[in-house]
Amino acid sequence: MSAGPEARRVVVTGGAGAIGGVLVKTLLARGAEVTVVDNLSSGRLENLGEATSHPGFRFVRADLMDPKAIAAAFRGATEVWHLAANPDIRRGTENPRLDLEQGTVATFNMLETARAAGIRRIRFSSSSVVYGFPRLFPTPEEYGPLLPQSQYAASKLAAEGLISAFAHCYGLTACVFRFANIIGPGMTHGVIFDFLQKLHQDPTRLEVLGDGSQTKSYLWTQDCVEAMLVAGDRARAPVELYNIGSFDQISVIEIAKKVVHAMGNQAHIEFTGGDRGWVGDIPKQFLMTGKIRATGWRPRYTSAEAVDRTIPLVRAQLGF
Amino acid sequence: MSAGPEARRVVVTGGAGAIGGVLVKTLLARGAEVTVVDNLSSGRLENLGEATSHPGFRFVRADLMDPKAIAAAFRGATEVWHLAANPDIRRGTENPRLDLEQGTVATFNMLETARAAGIRRIRFSSSSVVYGFPRLFPTPEEYGPLLPQSQYAASKLAAEGLISAFAHCYGLTACVFRFANIIGPGMTHGVIFDFLQKLHQDPTRLEVLGDGSQTKSYLWTQDCVEAMLVAGDRARAPVELYNIGSFDQISVIEIAKKVVHAMGNQAHIEFTGGDRGWVGDIPKQFLMTGKIRATGWRPRYTSAEAVDRTIPLVRAQLGF
Repeated sequence: MSAGPEARRVVVTGGAGAIGGVLVKTLLARGAEVTVVDNLSSGRLENLGEATSHPGFRFVRADLMDPKAIAAAFRGATEVWHLAANPDIRRGTENPRLDLEQGTVATFNMLETARAAGIRRIRFSSSSVVYGFPRLFPTPEEYGPLLPQSQYAASKLAAEGLISAFAHCYGLTACVFRFANIIGPGMTHGVIFDFLQKLHQDPTRLEVLGDGSQTKSYLWTQDCVEAMLVAGDRARAPVELYNIGSFDQISVIEIAKKVVHAMGNQAHIEFTGGDRGWVGDIPKQFLMTGKIRATGWRPRYTSAEAVDRTIPLVRAQLGF
Repeated sequence: MSAGPEARRVVVTGGAGAIGGVLVKTLLARGAEVTVVDNLSSGRLENLGEATSHPGFRFVRADLMDPKAIAAAFRGATEVWHLAANPDIRRGTENPRLDLEQGTVATFNMLETARAAGIRRIRFSSSSVVYGFPRLFPTPEEYGPLLPQSQYAASKLAAEGLISAFAHCYGLTACVFRFANIIGPGMTHGVIFDFLQKLHQDPTRLEVLGDGSQTKSYLWTQDCVEAMLVAGDRARAPVELYNIGSFDQISVIEIAKKVVHAMGNQAHIEFTGGDRGWVGDIPKQFLMTGKIRATGWRPRYTSAEAVDRTIPLVRAQLGF
């Protein structure tokens, strides 16, 4: 993976996002040349930090809904890591066209642009939400039926389908990564973000959406990036699916207690009730990770440790 | 299902297609009011026959890519049967934007228009191609992973995902029908159509794409329509998936022999080789049909009988 005649020249869409930033830094550190394509609708250049002054780095501000604007950025690349998407599930429920465009159509435009540029390797950040409300835990990659509960999930499933079709029709090879909750630096939404904001506004109480029993797997961003890189280098089939998550879980009430503890206050934790936090929420998520484990990859942090590490980062980001 | 204050007022998108025409006639015969929305890109008014003069029938020529054009047609309806799509898998491989637009985006526009009109019941003609190349036969509705092999299949999977998301986010209820090969009157493509055209051009030989071993389930159109109506009336969950197929299969070579026999000639059957007829083809398709069987529905014709009935219809249509 050293630069030179065999250089790895990578396009990262959504490279200014929370996960994208970590991926870009890691790729650069391993000798790749990286072109970030990002419309900065939710991504921020701060997520890229010192990467922006790296000689192998290039930034193209462009929206994937505008194929002409991205064509030049794709030229000469050897692979595309497609991370661009609306990151906030709840926004998509309010405005369903957002995920159709920034998820499904953007993925189609990425694929057509990659095909025109002769790029054959595609890596895609899908999500465990494609499983809908699974009835099987841990949930394997082969699980069905796939009944999305949100526009965001529908767009991830649609994007997976497009990637599979392009791989089989036009000879691309693709890795599809179905993420657990990925947490770490640069987060702009999610349960830790919400809890800290609520406690900042009212330190006496913390309202938890749902009954607190929602239980999910949380993975530290750098662990997620390492998993994708290991899996991507080993993929052989036209389309490989990988669940990417930690090997354990944590409940919403445990996260609430951690946040209250970190803020050093005595907030009373209150529950709105119901087994689901909000429309489109998936109350239980626990992925079978045998396939990614088989590559030798192991997460550095557990779900609880990832939460512990993320809380101060989000606090610093929110400025309190 | 009689007309009156409780009248069933149905929008059928793609109602001028081969399956749509039979559905529309059946709905009218059962007392429903039917509005067909069709852009006539592949549908033809002949498929509707005498239905066009029925007092409960209305035709709106409109494209689902133009939501404003369809809004009036949806107003006051109680359910939408969404059959509109590019019907020819191979066209989508040549022009992938076709299925993105006429499949995925058209379905999104249908759903948004239905939601705005307060229509809560959606019926959708999906396809067994969402299963990709399944490794399990007969293939149950819960099969995974879903790895589409064509743009058409990707658009069907994307549409299923959108329907599931709308059902769960906005309270619609939906039936998704995953069709085997549906054959009958009004066909404009498919293996019987191709074989007859080839034999008409050269009665001495019939070239079969692949090695002839491809084996699929064929279902007579009226049987398919009856299955959808029975299942739709019993559906309870937000989204119900139903495989819709005959209870048996037939191979491509058997179909070739039937066509040669029907043409009364001695054509030599030749094979191009390979287990797949063409890019995006699914060589083996056999659906688990226990769920639709449980409604009491039974197909009137086997796969072979459906083929036998279809051959003279396609010949008459082709004019020889």
